[in-house]
Formats: sequence, structure tokens, C-alpha cells
Amino acid sequence: MSTCTARVLLCLSEKGLEYELVPVQMSKGAHKQQPYLSLNPFGQIPAFEDGDVSLFESRAICKYLALKHKDIGTDLLRSSSFAEATIVDLWMEVEAHQFNGPISAFIRQIFLNPMFGRAPDEKVIETETEKLGKILDVYEERLSKSKYLAGDYYTMVDMNHIPYLVYFMKTPYATVVTSRPHVSAWWKNVLSRPATIKVSSGMTL
Amino acid sequence: MSTCTARVLLCLSEKGLEYELVPVQMSKGAHKQQPYLSLNPFGQIPAFEDGDVSLFESRAICKYLALKHKDIGTDLLRSSSFAEATIVDLWMEVEAHQFNGPISAFIRQIFLNPMFGRAPDEKVIETETEKLGKILDVYEERLSKSKYLAGDYYTMVDMNHIPYLVYFMKTPYATVVTSRPHVSAWWKNVLSRPATIKVSSGMTL
Repeated sequence: MSTCTARVLLCLSEKGLEYELVPVQMSKGAHKQQPYLSLNPFGQIPAFEDGDVSLFESRAICKYLALKHKDIGTDLLRSSSFAEATIVDLWMEVEAHQFNGPISAFIRQIFLNPMFGRAPDEKVIETETEKLGKILDVYEERLSKSKYLAGDYYTMVDMNHIPYLVYFMKTPYATVVTSRPHVSAWWKNVLSRPATIKVSSGMTL
Repeated sequence: MSTCTARVLLCLSEKGLEYELVPVQMSKGAHKQQPYLSLNPFGQIPAFEDGDVSLFESRAICKYLALKHKDIGTDLLRSSSFAEATIVDLWMEVEAHQFNGPISAFIRQIFLNPMFGRAPDEKVIETETEKLGKILDVYEERLSKSKYLAGDYYTMVDMNHIPYLVYFMKTPYATVVTSRPHVSAWWKNVLSRPATIKVSSGMTL
């Protein structure tokens, strides 16, 4: 179910890395207790271990994996070119500070509220969908000039958008994406990647 | 007034770089029109130009400056050590995805609502202050083991926290920081830096 765990799985898959996935019994509150809190003091999933490296925050885990394994699999950060890496960094910040807020608020209302016995707040859904549409207007313009968000190559920018969009596209609000031709074509492209197919097929919220 | 502009000014100052600050007439809506939108398509400040490099998103601008000028001024990203740089990245994500949400919502209520003739929403202030307190509990534990958030050295992690905290500490809710001894000592340390003194003295919200 976890979008942040899906983000790390996408990265592992793009890099062709092997891993062990250790479920956390969130229904029993295991993520808010030791020993889990020693892995992630904020009590959120995922947490990540690689030898003596212990990390949390999905985007930080992905960056670590992409830098450590920069010579295998997909070149997610374009770190061999400072100019290209700068644009990747910029659009990763756009994902984090423009896109993530509205879409995560939307997903909370549509998927998580009902799980906790609360009705979705229609007013919040409307506000956040409108915000998302304005952000995707900028993406539409951007994607009319390059195939992917950071250039003509797939990067961590595109990847970081996938988890929330997988769930978003299952809702009637998917038209926010499909009504914008370049965003829609980009999403089809992103969705057709072997790593995306593999990870999204296991995503069930 | 802008916290995101202050973040970039802090970085420029830590690096000892010269710059020209070009005001944007936001009261006249200049940030939502051309030519500004060609610098930042989201219509937010700041935007940044360095020769033919054009960027926006304050944290991306700071990263660019720190990487381009890594050999002068403060070593903000610790990029010569992969292990240290990984921890800097991790805690930058914590700032972005844990700290920034509640404190920016708080600042909106306390400072921005009155500017737009709206009363601060006491319920939101209470909720966000409580969230912030829980995050600072994790920081308190962290700062009992290292002088700064990413280690015993000042980095972009600490720097990225400064702008919102400068305004937060002017409110009666400053006790959320001062009641936590290690967080309070860290803040005093951060605040005493020449770059922080210089930039914060010009911050007037």
C-alpha cells in the first residue's frame, strides 16, 4: 500500500538490485515502537538498511542507491553532467514542493479517510484537485518541449511522481492527467517501463 | 519577507559569493506575469540566474551554488565524503518532508493571514504546533548526539531550517524550541553565524 515504499522499490528495480522486503505490522502499531523507531525515529515506513548504512525518507534512500550504483541500470541522477544533474535536482524539488502536497492530500481523502471510517472531504478534494491541475499546466508546457520532466531521458524526477499517480489514476479525477495531452503521453511512457509495471502491479490501496 | 529568498541569501553568504538582488513587485502581481513566469513557471519567488543557468526552488538553487562552489566558504553538502553526504541528504529530506509542512502552515496563519485581512485559525495553529513539537522531539534526541543535524558540522540541513524559524521565534510559540535544551542550544549556535546574523537582520515579516 505504501507510496513511499513503492518509490524505493521503483529505484531498486530501475537499478536491477536485489533486496529483501521486511513487512512492518502497522495495524499493530509496530512502526511507532522499538525496534522500528531506531530505524526511523519518525515512525513512518519505509526504513532501509544496506550493510551498516541505515536510512529513511524514501527520496533520500533513492538518491543513495542511485549514487552508490551510478554505473548500473538506469542513470537516474545524470551525475556525470553537472548541467543535467542541476536540472534533475530542480525538478526533484518541484515534485517535493509543488506536486507532492496536493496529490498526497487528495490520496488521504479518497483512499485513507474511508479506511479509518471517515468520509472524504469533498471541499478538500476540490481544492487539491484544482491546485494539482495548475501544477500540471506547468508540466504540460514543460513536456511539450522534452520527453521527460528533466530532459529527453527518464530520471528520478519522473520516478518520484509514480507512486501517488498510480493511485490517483484509479479515481474519476484521472481526467486531470488525461485531459493534458503531453502529461498524458508522459504518464503512458512512464507507466510502460518494466520497473513501473512490476512495482505498480503490487500496489493495492 | 520571503523565507525562500532568505534561504538562497543564506547560502550565498555562507559561500561568500557576490550577487545582485532584483525585487519583484508582488503587490502588482509581477510574479504571476511575464517576463517573470519565464524564470519561474510556478510564479513564486525567488528565481535565480547565473550566466545561462536559470533556476527556481530555493533548495535547488542552494544545492547548485554549494556544488558549483564546493571549494570556497562553508562546506554545506560534505560532498567529498559519500557517507557524510548521504546523511546530509537524509536530513535535508527530513527538513523538506517533516519540518517544512507544519512550520509553513503555522507561519501562514500567524503572519500571512492578517496581511490578507483574515484572522489566524487557532485550531490550525494548535494542530501544527503540536506536530512541530513531535518533530522537534526527534531533533532533540538527534542533537543530544551531534552538534548539528547532519553531524558535528554545520551543513545545508541546518541552513534550510533557518528562514521559517527566524519568524517562528518572534511568536509566543517560541517555547516549542526553547523548552527543548538541545534544540535550543542548536538554534543559538545557528543564529550566531555571521551569515545568519546578516540575512536574518533583513527579514521583516
